Amino acid sequence: MALSKNQLKLITSLQQKKYRTKHGLFIAEGTKVVEEFLNSNFILDQLFFVENNGYETLNNTTQISEIELKKISLLKTPNNVLAIFKIPAEENLLNNGFIVALDDINDPGNLGTIIRLCDWFGVDQLICSKNTTDCYNAKVVQASMGSLTRVSIIYTDLLNYLKNTSLPKYATLMDGENVYKSKLPKEAVLVMGNEANGISNNVLEVLDNTISIPRFGNIQQTESLNVATATAILLSEFKRLN
Amino acid sequence: MALSKNQLKLITSLQQKKYRTKHGLFIAEGTKVVEEFLNSNFILDQLFFVENNGYETLNNTTQISEIELKKISLLKTPNNVLAIFKIPAEENLLNNGFIVALDDINDPGNLGTIIRLCDWFGVDQLICSKNTTDCYNAKVVQASMGSLTRVSIIYTDLLNYLKNTSLPKYATLMDGENVYKSKLPKEAVLVMGNEANGISNNVLEVLDNTISIPRFGNIQQTESLNVATATAILLSEFKRLN
Repeated sequence: MALSKNQLKLITSLQQKKYRTKHGLFIAEGTKVVEEFLNSNFILDQLFFVENNGYETLNNTTQISEIELKKISLLKTPNNVLAIFKIPAEENLLNNGFIVALDDINDPGNLGTIIRLCDWFGVDQLICSKNTTDCYNAKVVQASMGSLTRVSIIYTDLLNYLKNTSLPKYATLMDGENVYKSKLPKEAVLVMGNEANGISNNVLEVLDNTISIPRFGNIQQTESLNVATATAILLSEFKRLN
Repeated sequence: MALSKNQLKLITSLQQKKYRTKHGLFIAEGTKVVEEFLNSNFILDQLFFVENNGYETLNNTTQISEIELKKISLLKTPNNVLAIFKIPAEENLLNNGFIVALDDINDPGNLGTIIRLCDWFGVDQLICSKNTTDCYNAKVVQASMGSLTRVSIIYTDLLNYLKNTSLPKYATLMDGENVYKSKLPKEAVLVMGNEANGISNNVLEVLDNTISIPRFGNIQQTESLNVATATAILLSEFKRLN
């Protein structure tokens, strides 16, 4: 069996958020990442493979040629399998625990890394502003390496959420309180801003606390830390003592 | 004036390490990154610009067209200027201070991020095994955002260096000592391993101590942390108390 025109059309369309939303579907690629989704609560829609890796026991699988996989894959080096999964329903917004909130993160690689970090550090929920990159974007799915299956991610009106939560809220800034000297609570919302513009002004207004990672270099010229590496350091600080 | 054939040939050749080494030259691109190199001790060889940003005061500059820049640029969206700088002589290997050592880091993005982190945290020297990606690779230059001008980077026989240094040596592993519970010295060598294979066995044999970043997630399935985010967290731990 080979790829039908309709399958090809569907797969191509899922590169766009508009069609992912319309169909409620997204794409995962490669043996390892697909396996993580298959072993999770995510529901498989269809799967396309070159070499059979036990995929015959699943429903809706299609064997395709290496050339066909190359045609539908977004990876530089396609890796045997491409699967379409259903986008799960979002969980309810949490008002307790430790939450990371993203204010318009643009770069899919950064979002993928942050999802992996949330998974590693056991973050209870990742809340994204409406303009944050879609977490079912192919690049995010590949960069998060299956962590998407274990992190609760919610897209919402961030300002509204922050106004209404009773958790202490931390703004990550270039000139906030030294994180190493701050007493950090176990339950909080840690807000990370856009790569170029930081946290937007209207969001900043509703936050209670500020934190920064101090610079140790002698020369005070270093560019700001990348948002994903800054998130790594701050999650480490919040979690190590709590 | 426009690009000569020889200039075009030189620029293209510098995409390969072989020719960077032969000519002792590398390429930096974009207004911001080029400015960081111009404001440093690095020596300019030639510079090509579309719009003049005060470049006329420099020697060996050539005005080129947008189309020519597109032809020689490796960036998706070329940004006004491409410059060729001389590769500086390496400094002497340090036997004191805080050193990061890389055992065969492959990914240019990871190396660029680590160089930025070394700059931020004031690491005294970055020592790379001979098989670590070349720091004058175009992707590393762009990812490190000018931090290359402020970090002392040395490529050497890593095993030999580690055998001979009297500094305490830390191996970053998946199952080492909990970094949050370790007493970390001010002066040390922190060794980070290859993305896929970790630290090689012969290097591991000469290291005194091991450290790990503990996992906080409930489900014990998370992939290992990316080497650049792990470096971020460990540098934060070594530096915050010292």
